[in-house]
Amino acid sequence: MSDHVYKMIEIVGSSATSSDDAVRRAIEFAAGSVREMRWAEVVETRAHIENQKIAHWQVKLKIGFTLEGS
Amino acid sequence: MSDHVYKMIEIVGSSATSSDDAVRRAIEFAAGSVREMRWAEVVETRAHIENQKIAHWQVKLKIGFTLEGS
Amino acid sequence: MSDHVYKMIEIVGSSATSSDDAVRRAIEFAAGSVREMRWAEVVETRAHIENQKIAHWQVKLKIGFTLEGS
Amino acid sequence: MSDHVYKMIEIVGSSATSSDDAVRRAIEFAAGSVREMRWAEVVETRAHIENQKIAHWQVKLKIGFTLEGS
Amino acid sequence: MSDHVYKMIEIVGSSATSSDDAVRRAIEFAAGSVREMRWAEVVETRAHIENQKIAHWQVKLKIGFTLEGS
Amino acid sequence: MSDHVYKMIEIVGSSATSSDDAVRRAIEFAAGSVREMRWAEVVETRAHIENQKIAHWQVKLKIGFTLEGS
Amino acid sequence: MSDHVYKMIEIVGSSATSSDDAVRRAIEFAAGSVREMRWAEVVETRAHIENQKIAHWQVKLKIGFTLEGS
Amino acid sequence: MSDHVYKMIEIVGSSATSSDDAVRRAIEFAAGSVREMRWAEVVETRAHIENQKIAHWQVKLKIGFTLEGS
Amino acid sequence: MSDHVYKMIEIVGSSATSSDDAVRRAIEFAAGSVREMRWAEVVETRAHIENQKIAHWQVKLKIGFTLEGS
Amino acid sequence: MSDHVYKMIEIVGSSATSSDDAVRRAIEFAAGSVREMRWAEVVETRAHIENQKIAHWQVKLKIGFTLEGS
Amino acid sequence: MSDHVYKMIEIVGSSATSSDDAVRRAIEFAAGSVREMRWAEVVETRAHIENQKIAHWQVKLKIGFTLEGS
Amino acid sequence: MSDHVYKMIEIVGSSATSSDDAVRRAIEFAAGSVREMRWAEVVETRAHIENQKIAHWQVKLKIGFTLEGS
Repeated sequence: MSDHVYKMIEIVGSSATSSDDAVRRAIEFAAGSVREMRWAEVVETRAHIENQKIAHWQVKLKIGFTLEGS
Repeated sequence: MSDHVYKMIEIVGSSATSSDDAVRRAIEFAAGSVREMRWAEVVETRAHIENQKIAHWQVKLKIGFTLEGS
Repeated sequence: MSDHVYKMIEIVGSSATSSDDAVRRAIEFAAGSVREMRWAEVVETRAHIENQKIAHWQVKLKIGFTLEGS
Repeated sequence: MSDHVYKMIEIVGSSATSSDDAVRRAIEFAAGSVREMRWAEVVETRAHIENQKIAHWQVKLKIGFTLEGS
Repeated sequence: MSDHVYKMIEIVGSSATSSDDAVRRAIEFAAGSVREMRWAEVVETRAHIENQKIAHWQVKLKIGFTLEGS
Repeated sequence: MSDHVYKMIEIVGSSATSSDDAVRRAIEFAAGSVREMRWAEVVETRAHIENQKIAHWQVKLKIGFTLEGS
Repeated sequence: MSDHVYKMIEIVGSSATSSDDAVRRAIEFAAGSVREMRWAEVVETRAHIENQKIAHWQVKLKIGFTLEGS
Repeated sequence: MSDHVYKMIEIVGSSATSSDDAVRRAIEFAAGSVREMRWAEVVETRAHIENQKIAHWQVKLKIGFTLEGS
Repeated sequence: MSDHVYKMIEIVGSSATSSDDAVRRAIEFAAGSVREMRWAEVVETRAHIENQKIAHWQVKLKIGFTLEGS
Repeated sequence: MSDHVYKMIEIVGSSATSSDDAVRRAIEFAAGSVREMRWAEVVETRAHIENQKIAHWQVKLKIGFTLEGS
Repeated sequence: MSDHVYKMIEIVGSSATSSDDAVRRAIEFAAGSVREMRWAEVVETRAHIENQKIAHWQVKLKIGFTLEGS
Repeated sequence: MSDHVYKMIEIVGSSATSSDDAVRRAIEFAAGSVREMRWAEVVETRAHIENQKIAHWQVKLKIGFTLEGS
C-alpha cells in the first residue's frame, strides 16, 4: 500500500458455490459503488443450512479502497 | 439470512432509560437513511456517568442491511 | 462454585421483549433437559430486525451445570 | 472526556432484577468510595442460577474516574 | 433466524479435498444425529501435513440448530 | 489427528491439588460418558478462594473426541 | 459523550513522519466529508518498509461523529 | 457467588517452584491487605529465564473480593 | 522482572502533544501515589476531536509496580 | 501430535486461484527449507484487489514442524 | 528487560509429567540453538489423550531472547 | 503486496526516545540479517520504568519479508 488515505467498508457476501466465491461476489457487488478497491480482509465465515445441507456460504469481509484526492 | 449481499454499518446509540433502549434508538435513527435492515450485533456497552449516577447508556452496534439490487 | 465437574452448553435464546428476557427464556427452555444449572455467561447479543424495528432479541449464552455423580 | 488523568477500577455488580440494574448497583456502591466517576465499560455479563432460574445477574464492569489534581 | 431457542454444537470436520469440503462433511455427519440445523460458524481452519504436503484439512465449526418444541 | 469427524465438549474440572489435576479429573469424569477422546484445550484457569486460601482450582477445557462411524 | 447517536467509520491514514501523524492525516482528510467528528480509536498500526527502512506509517482507526438531527 | 458487589484487582505473582505456586503466592501476599477474597482468574503465564533455565514463573491474575458493606 | 509480587493499575493519560506524551503524563501522575513502578502496557489509544482536529490524545495503560514487602 | 518439541513459523502464501491454494503454496515453498512439517493453522485471509477484481489471495498461516533431535 | 533488541520464537513443548514441565522442556531444547533467552510467554495449553487418559501435555510458548550485537 | 511468499518474524525493539523509534530500531537491526522486508505490524507497546520515569519504550512487532525465490 502506498502513501494514501483508505476507507474500510464491511460487507457480507453470499454464494451457493463456495466461501471464496462469496468473497468474490461481495467485491463484485461493491465495485458498483466504490472505486479503487485495494484489499479485502475476511472477518467471519458462516454457512446457512437448509434441509440439512449448506444452502449458501456467507462471508463477512472488510474492503479497503483509496479515498479520491488523498 | 437469504442469498444477498449485506452491508454493515457501526452506530453508537444513547438512552437515558436502558441499554436495550440505546440499541432501539440507534436502529430507529438509522431507519431514516438505511432501508432493509436485517440484524444488529452489539459490540460494546458503556454507561456515561454524571453526578455519580448513570446519565445515559451508550451501546455500539453493527447493523446489517440488504444492499439494493443484490 | 464448589468442588464438582461442570459441563457447559451453548444456547441461543430469543425474545420479543428484551435482551435479558432472551437469556431467561434460554435458561427456562434448557431446564427441560438439563438439571442442576449453576451459571450462564452471555457470549453475544444480537437483534433481529423486521420492518425497520427490532422483531426479537437473540442472545447466545453458555450455561454451566453440575454433572451428576461428580 | 476532557484533558485529565483517569483511573479505571474493575467491579462486579449483582442484581436480582436485571443486567442493567447490576451495573447501576455497582456504580452506586462505588460512589461510596470513589469521586468524579465519568464512565463505565461492561466487560462481562453472567447470570447466577438457582433452582433452574436466574437468581441474580452479575455484571463485571470497569469504571473510569478523574484523578483529583489532574 | 426466527423466534426460537437454538443449541450450538462444536464439530471438527476433515477432508482431503478442500477447507469448504471439511465444513460440508462435518454438517453431513452431524445430520445423522441432529435435526433442524440452521447455520454454521467457522471457528478455526487447520491443515494436517504428511510428507511435506496437506494430507487433509481440518475445520472446527459451531453448528446452530432449532431445539424441538421451542 | 487423522481423517475423522470430531466433536468438542466444554467441561470445567475442579481439584484441591493443582490446575493440572483439575484437567485430569475433568477428562477422567468425561471418560464415563464419552469414548475415543483425543485431545483437550485449556480455555480458562480459575482458583476458588476460601478463608484467604485456594480451596480448589477450576479449569475450563474443551475436549475433542472422534465421532463413532466417522 | 452526550446523549446523541454517533456513526463510526474506519479509515487508514498514512504518513512518512510518525504514527501519530498518520492518525492526524486520516482525521484531516475525513474532515472534508464528515462533520462533527468526536473521537477516534486506533485499531492497528503498521509500517510500510522500502529499501529496508520505514517508508510510511499506516494506522487504521475508527472515527466517531455525531449524526445530524440526533 | 452470592448477591454482593465485588472488586477485582490485578496482581503478578512469582515463584521459582511452579506456575500454580506463583498464583498461590500472589493470593497469599494479597491476603495481607484485602479481605474476603473469593476467586482468582489467571490472565497470563510467563517464565523468566536466566542462564538458559526458568529462574521463576510469573503469573498475572485477577482476584475478586467482596466489598465490605455490600 | 525479578522475584516479587507486582500490582497492576489501569490509568488513562491525556496529552495535547502526542500519544507517547499521554503515556508519560499518566506515569508521572501515578508517581505521586505509587512507588516502585516497573513497567507499563498500552491497552488502548484514542484521540479526542474538537473542531475537526485532535484536541488531545488519550491512552489507557496498565502500570505494574512492586508491592512493598514482597 | 506425539511427544516431541515443535517449532512454529509464520508464512504468508499467495495464489491467484483460491484461498486454499495460497495455503498449499506456502507449505510447498516452506518445504524447501523446513523438514518434518506436521500441521498448519490459518491466521488471516486477505484478498489483494486490482482493477476491481481479486488479483490474488493472501493467507497468513503458522506451520508447526518437529525439531530434529527432539 | 533492558535496552536491547529481542527476537521471539514460537515453540511447542511436550511432557508426560505436567504442563509446567512441557514449558521447561521446550526451553531446554531451545537452549541448544538459541543463546541469551530472557523470558517465555505461554500461548496455549493442550493435553493429548490416549486410552482415555492424558498421554502428554503440549504447551505452545513464545520465547524472547536478546539478539547478539543489539 | 504482490504475488509472493512472505515470512513473518517477531521482534521487540527498544528506544529511550519514543515508541515509533523502538519500531524503527527493530527494523534497522533486523536489516542486518533479513533482506526484502516489506511491512511491520505493531503487536504490543510497553514502557520500561526506572526511577518513576520511562527509561525506554519496548515495542513488539511482526516483520514480513519476501522469501527469496518465491
